[in-house]
Amino acid sequence: MNEQTIPYKIYLEEDEIPKQWYNLRADMQNKPAPLLDPETMQPMSAEKLRTVFCEELVQQELDDTTPYFDIPVEIRDFYKMYRPSPLTRAYYLEKALGTPAKIYYKFEGGNTSGSHKLNSAIAQAYYAKKQGLRGVTTETGAGQWGTALSMACAYFDLDCRVYMVKVSYEQKPFRREVMRVYGASVTPSPSETTAVGRKILEKHPGTGGSLGCAISEAVEAATSMEGYRYVLGSVLTQVMLHQSIIGLETKAALDKYGIKPDIIIGCAGGGSNLGGLIAPFMGEKLRGEADYRFIAVEPASCPSLTRGRFVYDYCDTGAVCPLAKMYTLGSNFIPAGTHAGGLRYHGMSPVLSQLYHDGLMEARAVEQTSVFEAAQLFARTEGTLPAPESSHAIRAAIDEALKCKETGEEKTIVFGLTGTGYFDMFAYQRYNDGEMVDYLPNDEELSRGFEGLPIFDS
Amino acid sequence: MNEQTIPYKIYLEEDEIPKQWYNLRADMQNKPAPLLDPETMQPMSAEKLRTVFCEELVQQELDDTTPYFDIPVEIRDFYKMYRPSPLTRAYYLEKALGTPAKIYYKFEGGNTSGSHKLNSAIAQAYYAKKQGLRGVTTETGAGQWGTALSMACAYFDLDCRVYMVKVSYEQKPFRREVMRVYGASVTPSPSETTAVGRKILEKHPGTGGSLGCAISEAVEAATSMEGYRYVLGSVLTQVMLHQSIIGLETKAALDKYGIKPDIIIGCAGGGSNLGGLIAPFMGEKLRGEADYRFIAVEPASCPSLTRGRFVYDYCDTGAVCPLAKMYTLGSNFIPAGTHAGGLRYHGMSPVLSQLYHDGLMEARAVEQTSVFEAAQLFARTEGTLPAPESSHAIRAAIDEALKCKETGEEKTIVFGLTGTGYFDMFAYQRYNDGEMVDYLPNDEELSRGFEGLPIFDS
Repeated sequence: MNEQTIPYKIYLEEDEIPKQWYNLRADMQNKPAPLLDPETMQPMSAEKLRTVFCEELVQQELDDTTPYFDIPVEIRDFYKMYRPSPLTRAYYLEKALGTPAKIYYKFEGGNTSGSHKLNSAIAQAYYAKKQGLRGVTTETGAGQWGTALSMACAYFDLDCRVYMVKVSYEQKPFRREVMRVYGASVTPSPSETTAVGRKILEKHPGTGGSLGCAISEAVEAATSMEGYRYVLGSVLTQVMLHQSIIGLETKAALDKYGIKPDIIIGCAGGGSNLGGLIAPFMGEKLRGEADYRFIAVEPASCPSLTRGRFVYDYCDTGAVCPLAKMYTLGSNFIPAGTHAGGLRYHGMSPVLSQLYHDGLMEARAVEQTSVFEAAQLFARTEGTLPAPESSHAIRAAIDEALKCKETGEEKTIVFGLTGTGYFDMFAYQRYNDGEMVDYLPNDEELSRGFEGLPIFDS
Repeated sequence: MNEQTIPYKIYLEEDEIPKQWYNLRADMQNKPAPLLDPETMQPMSAEKLRTVFCEELVQQELDDTTPYFDIPVEIRDFYKMYRPSPLTRAYYLEKALGTPAKIYYKFEGGNTSGSHKLNSAIAQAYYAKKQGLRGVTTETGAGQWGTALSMACAYFDLDCRVYMVKVSYEQKPFRREVMRVYGASVTPSPSETTAVGRKILEKHPGTGGSLGCAISEAVEAATSMEGYRYVLGSVLTQVMLHQSIIGLETKAALDKYGIKPDIIIGCAGGGSNLGGLIAPFMGEKLRGEADYRFIAVEPASCPSLTRGRFVYDYCDTGAVCPLAKMYTLGSNFIPAGTHAGGLRYHGMSPVLSQLYHDGLMEARAVEQTSVFEAAQLFARTEGTLPAPESSHAIRAAIDEALKCKETGEEKTIVFGLTGTGYFDMFAYQRYNDGEMVDYLPNDEELSRGFEGLPIFDS
């Protein structure tokens, strides 16, 4: 098809929003290892998972054979409020780089939560409501997940209690206010409101917290209140299932114009946006129908894939959650206060970990100053001011496009622009004031992440 | 057409973005009165306007007979980055209200500036670049216009100097940072950097400023530097011309589904978004082809249409700008520090003023607490967190929909959702903390706005 006919933004029609989520595990030969019960170190039973998670979500979490799950009509109705999201051709960025590469980005920031997180939040809130619960608890890092869950809970009239990583809570006071507009209550973590929070504060007084800590607190809160369950915005396979809508829409939009990507890039914190974006493409690769390069981009300050170990570890710092076999820096690792709060997690989705381990996906770590340089170039050329998390993917996309400039190759690059940076202006301010520094953990700091943990890989 | 077939969001195709702006004045029998030179009190000459404004913009400002202006391809290229904007059916709000009314909103907040302001910013930056200028100066209230102009200037590589109303500068520190990301410099107004700023500070020490003050400073800065011109985000007729793209797209989307609105509602500060939204519909009304009700909604704290006088007045507090015949509270009126910074302007577009005076449009004033109540209901039902300015229109749309609930009428209501409130969380915080109060100027305060001014109406 003639390139001139490709619009800047490729929108699908409302009736082209996918009606099913895709479960990548169904096509994996090496399935991700099962979650383990922290008390028995045996595979978690559905029954026990149900004490923490909603029933239908437990089913989705454990099912690694069903390839497609129907999206309930109530969730599809909500999706219509902000989906389909546009797939945009980065004509202006390409021009600024002088690259022959063709760059596309799937923009998930066009809703008030400012990111892709809403895709799973609405699903989890729906199943909680369906089960007749009073409310849910959760953690949030940068705040996108908490905002998304607040919006979803407001829609279904559920109580929403958010534990927010303290460093983000302080850097992003307005995030808290957005959650309040949607009726949620927000507590900085670690807090004195839970036993695990008090324990962490005793051990690390003055800590800025981490996603791992906040998860422990939210789980404790959920299991100690009647009619509540815990919901999680990343890492879990159910979340990646819901996020497959990103990849399915991306593929439908590319197919519409007969475009076949060479490289697909996403930032990786817990892994859900990347997993969702690549899912249908990885499925084709696993089934031998097509080949693509996949690149996971993580912060150099929290490099779980590139410097972590592929072992069983707790999903949370407090060791109250199940253990997952994943690339991890150790659940005792407390990452430096980098501005990409949403990527400050010690582990990585078990599905993505397995794919990476099997050589089906690449990974690279990038430093935050180079990430903000890419973010600012993107903002000035493409208009949209990106989230620091998403800008990790922009960095890698630009680097790949610049390689094409050297070699003259006209590769097609697709990356996930997961969100906007409107609540990250403190970070941009530091960058533009020349006050941003890069944090690189040394080997000793990394090894401390595993202190006192049981280490085993099967 | 069956209602079921109307999607939640009506998107136009990229090639349906209008290729011409519509100049409503061409269809007006009673043309808006000419701008007057503050030195001679005679109609401003094009020559003199060119010392302040870009050449082609002066031409657009003065032309009240040409109905359509071609949109240059460079501007249309930029429009593709964030247009066409969606026209959304507020199904969820309707349901929450239990109204038989059908509510649609045109959402202009889906770009990083967060509002419709970008539509004119890119046009004004383009004409400045075309004229070979080094840069432009401007004022900004809530910050949307300054952000929009920063983005536009970054795109065309122009220097951008913004005078920001001090009360907004302090309430919205992150807005300044967004402008910096796009390379602009931002000064709180009134400032010591201009003669007029120093004079205002002397007369009103500790003032939070106003759009009128900031305009005076920006004009002084532009005219005292080589290669600079002043650009304005509202009030002027050229701005309303550029904003007609909102109404043209809205009409095209409605026509696609055979929808004829009964009531069209917009918030009104300087009047450009409202003027742009209603332009093609008002054109039909003026030509006798159709009839609609139009409602301008303004803050009760700054009620230029509902409590002002239709006389000649300065466009700025410092009396350096031309005089316009408009509804005004007097250019010496300093509005209370309400949170809708973008609506804190003493006057109103001369075009809208004339239409209102001729009985072609209604106006109403609303109090900010009732505006935030409407904003929060809208956020929780429709997802998007609205700007306080836009929420004035939401308030009126809800009120009209509730009237329909009483009478059982199935009216079709269209309103302009001009922007998002992501940088207004301080205001939401005050509202949710119960600390927001309503400001109603008494008659004495209103009369002070005209103190020392020449008052005449022709």
